[in-house]
Amino acid sequence: MSQLTRATEPAEIRIPYGELRDLLASKLEHLGFAADRAHLCASMFADATLDGVYSHGVNRFPRFVRAVTSGVVNPAAMPELVSRFGALERWDGNSGIGNLNARQSMACAIQLAREHGIGCVALGNTNHWMRGGAYGWQAADAGMIGICWTNTMANVPPWGSAEPRIGNNPLIIAVPRKQGHLVLDMAMSQFSYGAVESYRMRGQMLPVPGGFTTAGELTRDPAEIEKSHRHLPIGYWKGSGLAIMLDLLGSVLSGGLATRQIPSDPERETRVSQVFIAMNPASVGPVEKIDEIADALVTDLHAATPLPGERVRYPGEQVLDIRKQNREQGIPVNIRILEQIQKL
Amino acid sequence: MSQLTRATEPAEIRIPYGELRDLLASKLEHLGFAADRAHLCASMFADATLDGVYSHGVNRFPRFVRAVTSGVVNPAAMPELVSRFGALERWDGNSGIGNLNARQSMACAIQLAREHGIGCVALGNTNHWMRGGAYGWQAADAGMIGICWTNTMANVPPWGSAEPRIGNNPLIIAVPRKQGHLVLDMAMSQFSYGAVESYRMRGQMLPVPGGFTTAGELTRDPAEIEKSHRHLPIGYWKGSGLAIMLDLLGSVLSGGLATRQIPSDPERETRVSQVFIAMNPASVGPVEKIDEIADALVTDLHAATPLPGERVRYPGEQVLDIRKQNREQGIPVNIRILEQIQKL
Repeated sequence: MSQLTRATEPAEIRIPYGELRDLLASKLEHLGFAADRAHLCASMFADATLDGVYSHGVNRFPRFVRAVTSGVVNPAAMPELVSRFGALERWDGNSGIGNLNARQSMACAIQLAREHGIGCVALGNTNHWMRGGAYGWQAADAGMIGICWTNTMANVPPWGSAEPRIGNNPLIIAVPRKQGHLVLDMAMSQFSYGAVESYRMRGQMLPVPGGFTTAGELTRDPAEIEKSHRHLPIGYWKGSGLAIMLDLLGSVLSGGLATRQIPSDPERETRVSQVFIAMNPASVGPVEKIDEIADALVTDLHAATPLPGERVRYPGEQVLDIRKQNREQGIPVNIRILEQIQKL
Repeated sequence: MSQLTRATEPAEIRIPYGELRDLLASKLEHLGFAADRAHLCASMFADATLDGVYSHGVNRFPRFVRAVTSGVVNPAAMPELVSRFGALERWDGNSGIGNLNARQSMACAIQLAREHGIGCVALGNTNHWMRGGAYGWQAADAGMIGICWTNTMANVPPWGSAEPRIGNNPLIIAVPRKQGHLVLDMAMSQFSYGAVESYRMRGQMLPVPGGFTTAGELTRDPAEIEKSHRHLPIGYWKGSGLAIMLDLLGSVLSGGLATRQIPSDPERETRVSQVFIAMNPASVGPVEKIDEIADALVTDLHAATPLPGERVRYPGEQVLDIRKQNREQGIPVNIRILEQIQKL
């Protein structure tokens, strides 16, 4: 283990991937997870941190464990098929382990896409899937286009009101490419609660407006947004509309809960609804053409004259670099979080 | 016909729906459209205006006719099936009539969804579909969830550059509901070119930042944005990423062109790529439940305390009112546009 400190974060330490995963898996086994499921669930937490998604990786593990001990997550529950018709399936997550439920659902959608060109699994009554991008990478690793989303508890006001009544409902879109998949992983709020808090703690303004003051003015001041609770949906009325539709689709397809029915408390957020779509582009055209088209698009984006100090990146571009670095140097974990995990 | 003037628009006149549709159809027949196709194409232009989507209805008709006479649109061409696998189909639009090609594609997707629960038609080499929302309403009228999008010519800079290289790629999501479908119809730019121009001509600021000045500052001034050509994608980097992914999906699935390959000239924009997905929620659960879920969501949104002078609306909420009003009072058409059409 090597220790390092980032300018803006508490002290971190780097841990080899396998060591970290095994530590998490052992804690999950103590909680009553079956050994193979403990291993897979732990791997997914470690993978998120490996890929640089620190908010939904190991740093999130203590809260996940609290959800298990409080009964929000039932580690023994397995998802069940409720109904199917052709390439469309409805599943009940039975309040099981969110990331394992989601992974299995995307695996089913991929299998459906192998058989029908496209497949969709709607999953109700499940738990937070942690890093949504994981299921995009999963589809793309299988040569599939992946599209998935989840609803969440209410945390953003719909356009026209100041009351948080819609979720930030992350949407993931992935396209496979040999030289590195393109994977978009975006929530419908301009900034997450965590991001706004980090800016405030660092004493920085947000780079663009992220919400409103209590007086109803757009602001880049994170403290003002935390005061008003008026976080901004992306594109104002547009992201508000998109969040509403994703929530409705998830709930209608899965028969599960909509955002308004999900407890508005991060520790009690549960029974969310998710949709997983996989498409097999190789079933309707030459497989080489997929890479050709994606490579040409990436080349074109990289050819755009960058603004000073910036550059144009494709969605997911940074992941492979971060993954390589973290694999070589060890996975960065907040020391306080590590201590918490060791004591679990 | 009755005449009326809006405060901010040139003089308009109201024309009964049937009269307007027949006028447009007769002009299309003169251009060589088969009678039934002239009727359907004209109906779709009239319907867009009927529903209040003035930018892509009758006001757009003269430009559409120019596209036919210039050869961009081939009125005799019919879409052809290129390949199919299960519930996924690839079609070639053969540079045919954009709205008819799109309508047929969504009809195919709906049929696939009847057979497989979900269906997807990817259409390459087609023309501007005019009002994208039409295909959402089409799916919802058939009791289906509809999701579709199109790529466009480059008109917005990707995040990190000031060069317009990505399209505003409208995305439509529709969910059926007896009391009025929910239909989201949104482009990836915060404001269309037409909207920015209208604000400038009225001497008004945009309600929220819509782009950058040439100095790189966010601005609400429409004239500044027209000067810099730096229109804003919704949610800054997020809408940029979403536009990139929608373009890539359209091009990979249809085997057709990506935004970078489409002529960047509104009069020559052609050979775009589109994707139409239909899902049959009634195939995996009770049909009454769909309305119940959608109604409850609408009720919840309407219960949100509105901000002063505003109210929370669901996507598509205004359409039925506007449709009713325009059906009763006649469809509003700009007098200059009407004169242009009569002379065609």
